[in-house]
Amino acid sequence: MCETCGCGHRDSRTVDVRRDVLSHNAEHAAENRARLAARGAAAVNVIGSPGAGKTALLEAVIPRLRSRRSIGVIEGDLKTALDAERIARTGVPVHQINTGDGCHLDAGQVARALDRVSIEPGGLLLIENVGNLVCPASFDLGETLRVVVLSTPEGDDKVDKYPIAFVDASALVISKIDLLPYVGFSVARCREVALALNPRLEVFEVSARTGEGLEPLCDWLGGAGR
Amino acid sequence: MCETCGCGHRDSRTVDVRRDVLSHNAEHAAENRARLAARGAAAVNVIGSPGAGKTALLEAVIPRLRSRRSIGVIEGDLKTALDAERIARTGVPVHQINTGDGCHLDAGQVARALDRVSIEPGGLLLIENVGNLVCPASFDLGETLRVVVLSTPEGDDKVDKYPIAFVDASALVISKIDLLPYVGFSVARCREVALALNPRLEVFEVSARTGEGLEPLCDWLGGAGR
Repeated sequence: MCETCGCGHRDSRTVDVRRDVLSHNAEHAAENRARLAARGAAAVNVIGSPGAGKTALLEAVIPRLRSRRSIGVIEGDLKTALDAERIARTGVPVHQINTGDGCHLDAGQVARALDRVSIEPGGLLLIENVGNLVCPASFDLGETLRVVVLSTPEGDDKVDKYPIAFVDASALVISKIDLLPYVGFSVARCREVALALNPRLEVFEVSARTGEGLEPLCDWLGGAGR
Repeated sequence: MCETCGCGHRDSRTVDVRRDVLSHNAEHAAENRARLAARGAAAVNVIGSPGAGKTALLEAVIPRLRSRRSIGVIEGDLKTALDAERIARTGVPVHQINTGDGCHLDAGQVARALDRVSIEPGGLLLIENVGNLVCPASFDLGETLRVVVLSTPEGDDKVDKYPIAFVDASALVISKIDLLPYVGFSVARCREVALALNPRLEVFEVSARTGEGLEPLCDWLGGAGR
């Protein structure tokens, strides 16, 4: 989380503000969770670096998932509605949040977006967070599952270097495996380090481009909260 | 910058804290800048997403640059000294900063690191920031030049979606151009959007793996602050 929130320039006031913001966020998250549970719906918070392939992953899983569950999507980006436009072409309801210079989504933003994206009873809300492997990890959105997407071109040392994103995640999706022949990424090393950090982690290896590995991921997502 | 700093949960106290932290950072940045200028040295703040290839770029440019200027390196990561170990193998002085859960470097951290990495008169300090395309953009480290690294697998829509990283940068390095045949990235589109946002931007297209495009970048870096 941003040092401005107290992790470097730590005086009592910045620590107080950080605690208040997280406490305020936790209240909204609990409300979101209750609101989804009341409809028998589940939410998945998708985090990962810019360009990890989060939107491409959603574009690939939505057509495979929507026959099993009703889907709604919330997209987070600093600027533009480019991702919401891509998701809209799959035919599911989508709402874009623009954070301006904000480096993550918070539960209050998701609460307001929930007024705009109708989630059917038993449905699944897919939330694509702002591209960032650090800050989103500190903000519970009220999700049922948290998925971190790590693409092969990013390198297999990212779990070591950015553990905050992986330690509490429900699943790690290793994306862009079609690029494995061209990048120096060891899936075995990445799995080993991730599972040592977080033994409960589900690990999926997928390519949104070729479709490889998507079925097991869709089976798991389809069962979210059930 | 992190919403916790006032961009979402905006009450007067969070806005005050954000202003104070940035003001405190600006003081340290001015001190760093004066300290480097007193030695005729320059600093380059290298920002980009996790896995954009920042460390690989430094490993590639250092052997080409060190005959022209004395080099020192500061590495930023949440955890591990993996990047400092890679840089140390090039033979130049390097100091690793671990931010814990901090999403960017700040000027105070760089000031303390400057006590450990001796920069020769006329030398060049290369600072690799924490992998993040949002938060580092708000924190001046006292650098002479700011370079943003965007890798081709991240996609050519990142300037549109994360303009904060590009609007005040001195240069855009489009990295991993050896992967262009395998990823859907338009260099022309990326250049056009970036230059429309920031017409002063120098744009370089490089591959640290093949060495393509490194000479013009090294010529430019070699002249930093001169």
